[in-house]
Amino acid sequence: MKETKKYSAPFIKRMPIYYRYLSTLLQVGVNRISSNDLSRWLGITASQVRQDFSCFEGSGLQGYGYEVGVLHKEIAKVLGLDVMRKMIVLGGGSLGQALAKHTNFEKNGFKIVAIFDINPQVVGKKIKDIEVLHVDALREFVSKHQVDLAAITVPATHANEAANLAVEMGITALWNFVPVELKVPKSVVIENIHLSDSLMVLGYKHRESQLKDE
Amino acid sequence: MKETKKYSAPFIKRMPIYYRYLSTLLQVGVNRISSNDLSRWLGITASQVRQDFSCFEGSGLQGYGYEVGVLHKEIAKVLGLDVMRKMIVLGGGSLGQALAKHTNFEKNGFKIVAIFDINPQVVGKKIKDIEVLHVDALREFVSKHQVDLAAITVPATHANEAANLAVEMGITALWNFVPVELKVPKSVVIENIHLSDSLMVLGYKHRESQLKDE
Repeated sequence: MKETKKYSAPFIKRMPIYYRYLSTLLQVGVNRISSNDLSRWLGITASQVRQDFSCFEGSGLQGYGYEVGVLHKEIAKVLGLDVMRKMIVLGGGSLGQALAKHTNFEKNGFKIVAIFDINPQVVGKKIKDIEVLHVDALREFVSKHQVDLAAITVPATHANEAANLAVEMGITALWNFVPVELKVPKSVVIENIHLSDSLMVLGYKHRESQLKDE
Repeated sequence: MKETKKYSAPFIKRMPIYYRYLSTLLQVGVNRISSNDLSRWLGITASQVRQDFSCFEGSGLQGYGYEVGVLHKEIAKVLGLDVMRKMIVLGGGSLGQALAKHTNFEKNGFKIVAIFDINPQVVGKKIKDIEVLHVDALREFVSKHQVDLAAITVPATHANEAANLAVEMGITALWNFVPVELKVPKSVVIENIHLSDSLMVLGYKHRESQLKDE
């Protein structure tokens, strides 16, 4: 079925936040929640919450709240969490290994199927039950396993090389952890996790908050 | 000296991107760069670049470009990268260890001085030259070492507990890797790295791009 609805980027960015929180509510057996409570917990205004959910099924009667299970399913549908996607990790260093050990991704429909590296000290290891393979085996692996996404955790000097390799193999979604702007065709989608950038912003906020106190 | 200038959040978010790129240029000996070249590399419009840098010293003559070294210093000043800050990591699991092994943070003025955990299998270990201490030693350590920031990489169920502990010790800047909205006093500044959220957004973009191709 072809999805025709197009959502705005800020809307899509808020969806995982709701989704996480609704998952927790379901775990603890809360079945109903108001926009005000969601707002208080998530730091999103109540009117924004109501607007975001207005297009969803079972979207809250006044004074009655939202059905948590229904919302949870609707958001999963929007985000496409109802399918299992396969991801490889390019770069088997400490960050790549930490990603492989992360248990939450699979719960959300993202399965890490292999890690690739060139370092003989890492190649051949298993991280949980995920094998670290030599990058020479990448082509064969990808063509065999229908890989959807690649996380990139190689050293900065090799980031574009790794990205291009993934794209050559037909992977069109990159999760980039390297502090570099990747140069890839426009058809390739990227999400960046720039740790140093985030830390610098935190440093700035920290200093600002101290200056306020003076 | 009291800093009076207040910058917008989007402006501050762009600064680390410029800073990273200018650092690389300096490394390879490029001393001058145009707003157009910056724009092309960083995916920020040239007019945005010019606006961002308009308040800086030595801010580009028409057709002459910016002095890379001058800009680099100006941005470091804005972000407060000229001081060394001390950071602890709460949570010595794979992600906490990966942070400790990351070499870029120290280059930007953020020094990880200790990791804290309660797991006897991790406590006592050294990650590079950074000790993993028992959380019981936290109070003494923080009061002795003037810690500025805490990275939080504990399991989700302990995230708020860890955050509150840090805040109690006088730490007012938290780098949160746990997929939870931390509940701390308003005076505490937070930067979130929500890996699962980012991955869900990537999954959405991936599906969207595939539907376009159909």
